[in-house]
Amino acid sequence: MAQAAEPPSGTRDFLADDVRRRKAAFDRVATVFEHHGFDPLETPAFERLETFAGKLGDEASALIFKILKRGVHEASGEADLALRYDHTVPLARVMGTYGSRLPLPYKRYIIGNVWRADRPAKGRFREFVQCDIDTVGSSSPLADAEIVWTINEGLEALGVTDFRFRVNSRKALHGLLEAYGVPAELGTKVLGSLDKLDKATPEAVTAELVERGLTTNTAEGVVADVTAPDTERIRKQLRTTERGTLGLGEVDRLLSLTEGLPPGRVAFTPRMVRGLDYYTGPIFEVEGTGYPGSIASGGRYDGLVAKLGGPDLPGCGGSIGIERILAVQAAEDTSHAAGLDVALTVLGAEADVLHLAQQLRARGLRTGVYLGASGKLAKQLKWANDQRARVVVIYGPDEQATSEITVRDMDSGEQTRLPISEAANALQSKLTPA
Amino acid sequence: MAQAAEPPSGTRDFLADDVRRRKAAFDRVATVFEHHGFDPLETPAFERLETFAGKLGDEASALIFKILKRGVHEASGEADLALRYDHTVPLARVMGTYGSRLPLPYKRYIIGNVWRADRPAKGRFREFVQCDIDTVGSSSPLADAEIVWTINEGLEALGVTDFRFRVNSRKALHGLLEAYGVPAELGTKVLGSLDKLDKATPEAVTAELVERGLTTNTAEGVVADVTAPDTERIRKQLRTTERGTLGLGEVDRLLSLTEGLPPGRVAFTPRMVRGLDYYTGPIFEVEGTGYPGSIASGGRYDGLVAKLGGPDLPGCGGSIGIERILAVQAAEDTSHAAGLDVALTVLGAEADVLHLAQQLRARGLRTGVYLGASGKLAKQLKWANDQRARVVVIYGPDEQATSEITVRDMDSGEQTRLPISEAANALQSKLTPA
Repeated sequence: MAQAAEPPSGTRDFLADDVRRRKAAFDRVATVFEHHGFDPLETPAFERLETFAGKLGDEASALIFKILKRGVHEASGEADLALRYDHTVPLARVMGTYGSRLPLPYKRYIIGNVWRADRPAKGRFREFVQCDIDTVGSSSPLADAEIVWTINEGLEALGVTDFRFRVNSRKALHGLLEAYGVPAELGTKVLGSLDKLDKATPEAVTAELVERGLTTNTAEGVVADVTAPDTERIRKQLRTTERGTLGLGEVDRLLSLTEGLPPGRVAFTPRMVRGLDYYTGPIFEVEGTGYPGSIASGGRYDGLVAKLGGPDLPGCGGSIGIERILAVQAAEDTSHAAGLDVALTVLGAEADVLHLAQQLRARGLRTGVYLGASGKLAKQLKWANDQRARVVVIYGPDEQATSEITVRDMDSGEQTRLPISEAANALQSKLTPA
Repeated sequence: MAQAAEPPSGTRDFLADDVRRRKAAFDRVATVFEHHGFDPLETPAFERLETFAGKLGDEASALIFKILKRGVHEASGEADLALRYDHTVPLARVMGTYGSRLPLPYKRYIIGNVWRADRPAKGRFREFVQCDIDTVGSSSPLADAEIVWTINEGLEALGVTDFRFRVNSRKALHGLLEAYGVPAELGTKVLGSLDKLDKATPEAVTAELVERGLTTNTAEGVVADVTAPDTERIRKQLRTTERGTLGLGEVDRLLSLTEGLPPGRVAFTPRMVRGLDYYTGPIFEVEGTGYPGSIASGGRYDGLVAKLGGPDLPGCGGSIGIERILAVQAAEDTSHAAGLDVALTVLGAEADVLHLAQQLRARGLRTGVYLGASGKLAKQLKWANDQRARVVVIYGPDEQATSEITVRDMDSGEQTRLPISEAANALQSKLTPA
């Protein structure tokens, strides 16, 4: 009976090499998070549909996978559960569920799947891992700085070496608009245009700003100031307003608390804008040489946890774009994947072979036993080769007669014979790095 | 805004200690599976609904979580996807998807969630981890034996020490029915009654068999034979039929190929019955002292992969009841969970504190920085205590004046003072096991 063989649209199967590569990356990042005092949290794959209600914008809500009611209610065609869209709504729910049972500030990390019914495209999936750290319940600038330090270490643990944090402040962005006299109703669009300055020319952005309603004079001034090689001009402008001054203070505090990072790792980037509805304080994003788009981002989001249904606590967090990083690294990875350490042929004396296999496995060697139907050595050697075995053990009638084994090195082709009683220790010495 | 605070019915949040305990257990088992030459596989959380169609019985089908169509099709109330109910249907699909790209036999393991809309009860969840190994594409008795060896090592890695494999054969069960002249139409029910002999008395089971249509003579005979202290009587009976002889051969082969296991670890249990629609050859289940029910099970299921929509390949596998094991172990676990290695107080000089924190983290110490609003040492020490910190570092104005830190051991209360430049190495020596 045939069936649709591909996994569902936008999802992936991960075979051995991919699982191992991904798990190793997740483990490395988790270790960094643990060292920084973040606690792991796991929430269910789905939440009650009402947990999401009104928490996400219309665009996001349309991407939620909804689960039909079960049993007699299935016929209603109604849903009561939804796959988690992100890790933030569940975090807000958890803050409400466990309250005082959680330490405050609550520092948690999660590296787990989220599901979004987005249109599948190259590099865009419907099931993908989000890798988040969040500190809920602290207003301290140290908490913001700790997020940056932790993300920095996480990226380094993933093998990303050449990257930069672009930092700004939500308040500085408000101050910027005020300083240049941008009418409130144009604010969001103006910031959106300025955010394009990495990809578009200053002239194109200036033209767009004029089209959006700024005077040519203002448009040229703001573009010139936010793209100036140093940030002195924009700093002077920001200091002319109260919010700008506050925002600049947040930025400078973050810069001073991350001074220990390599020079140039963190830079004030006044034109950098992120999720205006979401963040309230310092914000950052990370660009890495060789990686498209941003590979990490985050910021302070006081008020969000309450808005999402949790208690009214300040918070800040960061997220590593681990799928994006893994995609680039997988494309570059030309290493050979893990094969067997030892392949055991089976030419009779099966119980002895299994016994030897167990001894090798107990010594940490990845050991396979031939499970096919052929009694021919050539066929079994082909299997061992397919398994990328480092050595093959031959225990044929000849060897059985003298209680010896033949060990064949698959790289050199060299064969040696030794007593089966010495096999486990000898193979361990040969195959385990000292 | 308040919201339903509990996770959805039948699901669990896992906070730090639980996540760490579970992950450590999963990793231990995965290492055993890797050493035994099984490859990891991960499939999406959901499959196309049609992938399950007709593959599961009515009872199981009713427990599937179905996902509503998205976008304009949502209003139809129809589902097109379903959360995975087990790992076997996705395995059959994967065998079809990747075909010759997979090594044959394909030995894979998976430790991942499945979802079943079962009525929640104590120890029964709607989201839970299944831990499976399977070998597809081998008819060799060595493959069956390898499953038993691997499950054995997996259970030992989980810290289960006192357990026994009860083995039988699907063919032996057929032979048993034939040998005692049980009419074909009574077969399933008779085997169901015999399977109760662990919990019910022989008399009760005999009565039930008579009620189901056996003669008193036959009922008494079969109950006496399958409960006899040794298996000689049942062996004699099985040898009177062709299928019984074949089944007994399978059992004896498995016993001989697992002779290297501790004495009594594997025993022929002629009354043991498992999933009659599922298995075709040797079958086993594992009972462990101190654990309710069976803690592992498996067997050979030639024909199943094709029945589930995959290619026509023989297969065998086993599953560790890891949730059941973890539940018992969690209840017994009185150890204190991981706290911070070092808690750093913040009494000014924040950049220095963060810098020290990074040095400690880079040395593998789990380090937290006080992120609260209080500048009072007593309050910060209370926080460190709540964090179960092993030592607290105090860097107040006094210490800052001489570039020293005070290290307070939270167990002994002892305080020592040392230059901040020596802090990282000194704390690493103190806190890292040699």
